[in-house]
Amino acid sequence: MSLMLQEIEEQPQALARMLDGCAQQVRVLERRFAVERPESIVLVARGTSDNAATFARYLLEILLGIPTSLAAPSIATVYDSPARRKHTLVVGISQSGESTDTNLYLEKAGAAGAVTLGITNESASSLAKLADEALSVRVGPEKSVAATKTYTGQLLAIYLLARALGARIPEAALRKLPELVARQLESKERTAALAERYRYMEHAVVVGRGLNYANALELALKMMETSYVVAERFSGADFMHGPLALVEKGFPVFVFAPGGPARKGTAKLLARLAEADAETIAIGPPAVVRGLPATKRIFLNGAIPFVPDGPEDLMTPIPAIVPGQLFAAYLSEHKGLDPDHPRMLSKVTRTL
Amino acid sequence: MSLMLQEIEEQPQALARMLDGCAQQVRVLERRFAVERPESIVLVARGTSDNAATFARYLLEILLGIPTSLAAPSIATVYDSPARRKHTLVVGISQSGESTDTNLYLEKAGAAGAVTLGITNESASSLAKLADEALSVRVGPEKSVAATKTYTGQLLAIYLLARALGARIPEAALRKLPELVARQLESKERTAALAERYRYMEHAVVVGRGLNYANALELALKMMETSYVVAERFSGADFMHGPLALVEKGFPVFVFAPGGPARKGTAKLLARLAEADAETIAIGPPAVVRGLPATKRIFLNGAIPFVPDGPEDLMTPIPAIVPGQLFAAYLSEHKGLDPDHPRMLSKVTRTL
Repeated sequence: MSLMLQEIEEQPQALARMLDGCAQQVRVLERRFAVERPESIVLVARGTSDNAATFARYLLEILLGIPTSLAAPSIATVYDSPARRKHTLVVGISQSGESTDTNLYLEKAGAAGAVTLGITNESASSLAKLADEALSVRVGPEKSVAATKTYTGQLLAIYLLARALGARIPEAALRKLPELVARQLESKERTAALAERYRYMEHAVVVGRGLNYANALELALKMMETSYVVAERFSGADFMHGPLALVEKGFPVFVFAPGGPARKGTAKLLARLAEADAETIAIGPPAVVRGLPATKRIFLNGAIPFVPDGPEDLMTPIPAIVPGQLFAAYLSEHKGLDPDHPRMLSKVTRTL
Repeated sequence: MSLMLQEIEEQPQALARMLDGCAQQVRVLERRFAVERPESIVLVARGTSDNAATFARYLLEILLGIPTSLAAPSIATVYDSPARRKHTLVVGISQSGESTDTNLYLEKAGAAGAVTLGITNESASSLAKLADEALSVRVGPEKSVAATKTYTGQLLAIYLLARALGARIPEAALRKLPELVARQLESKERTAALAERYRYMEHAVVVGRGLNYANALELALKMMETSYVVAERFSGADFMHGPLALVEKGFPVFVFAPGGPARKGTAKLLARLAEADAETIAIGPPAVVRGLPATKRIFLNGAIPFVPDGPEDLMTPIPAIVPGQLFAAYLSEHKGLDPDHPRMLSKVTRTL
């Protein structure tokens, strides 16, 4: 079994462990933000961590109304023009904590007046040392080059950050996540069988919206890294503005369809894809996915907790990526590749 | 000749006309920003206009140090959770001015306290009417579904906005742009011949960085819309974090290599691509592109103005996209397609 599959399967335990392990750090953050609430939040990251940052961008702005954005790191690291960052929380996210540009960006933002927070799986890393505050992703060492458990760990850290900033996400909803991830793992055999059909797929499109847009980016990245599929990623709305032209009969389009506020837009997209006779693969709860015409349905197993103050899809992103991770890992195997050692890549990437 | 090619060729005249036509609106903006300088800027757009917004995100933050970010429209339009927007300038960009979600976002941002600005080619559009301020893209009606002259017109509007906010971009540097675009058009025959080689290209990667990252997004979108090439787009640094695994012998990678601050990073990327025996096509000034090993070079013709207070690549984005526009238009013809009428698309896209 590949390291990637092993690490996908470790996720329920890893997330449960992390929920207990982070309590102390979350209390520290709560106290700090109670007296010093940020007026804006900027996220900086690369690769899979940048996809987690995209989730944060939606979650924090939706739940807290604090303007939240993704950094363009080169503005500070290449052009050396860091913007003013007073009253700003700048969050660096990195599995290794050794991403050169993320760290340099955080340093410059700190110098420009920001409070800095590092979210990393390596508590002794450069990122953990240089940031004002830390939130540790406690999922154990990740050995596969294709990140999986650190991605879901980062998403969990972001829910915890949202709570520390005052978002009302009940403890019980978070405690349900490890079990929900375990429920998705039950579909392993079915996903392995489904993936075989795509043995010769060379390109694809992955679409998600809102809180699940990050998952579209992440599934596309996983397919690129492990299976060398040229996988384009789009928000549902952006996809309609041009790239839709790509779709011809049989063109594979993966759609995250978690229900909730984005449901109407997703239904419209699915109808257009059906018209074009695309090969649509949709990931979502049975109630949403069951009605789709001519679709390869990937059901989300288990009842996703409903949070009174949040949108209906609030707790879907962590369980919804799991079938995607499994799919990418099995696709890689069907293609005779090694998902743990993509060509040209190493685990820590240093760019400026 | 396609409408797309005609509109590409109209760009020198259109940009020159626009420079004169916008003077009055720019003065109004200058006066407003002199008493009411925004503390942050948010851009909202879709499709090609969103690529122009990406350019704005870099240009404004680099030259002005004002935190600038791209909106995630769905946060306001789907989740109905608009963030606080006091002291914020929210800029909507749309060719038609009738993009439903851009307009709704701007309306909600205005209600949340923002000053709103509309950049559109249609001065009688809904966007022009609902925004507090207007900056008109005066390039004449665009008939091809594939946007070209409105993209360069939007970039020009963004330079003018930067000036209205206090950036020191000399009038002479802007006045040089129409001539520079005309110089790129001189390479038409060469570009048409080069494009033929890619008649059977089904997928590709396009890479750019910093001020030219927007051009990578735009060239990729043009290849998707007009030639149905599955064209992935990345910043140079993000490309190294995972997607680099896609590259095998002969894999086509288009690289914007304008020189300036990003030159070192771009040189590293080009060296990695050469190692992997990729098919690299680089667009840049002779001094930068000439030294590249085994590369299909696309020279930028003419001397790009150097602006003392700006980075070396400040004035490259408008001339640099022109060879890309020509390439996409000719590739579409070589493939026997009609670049003006991509399948599944119409000129105005309405999404929420």
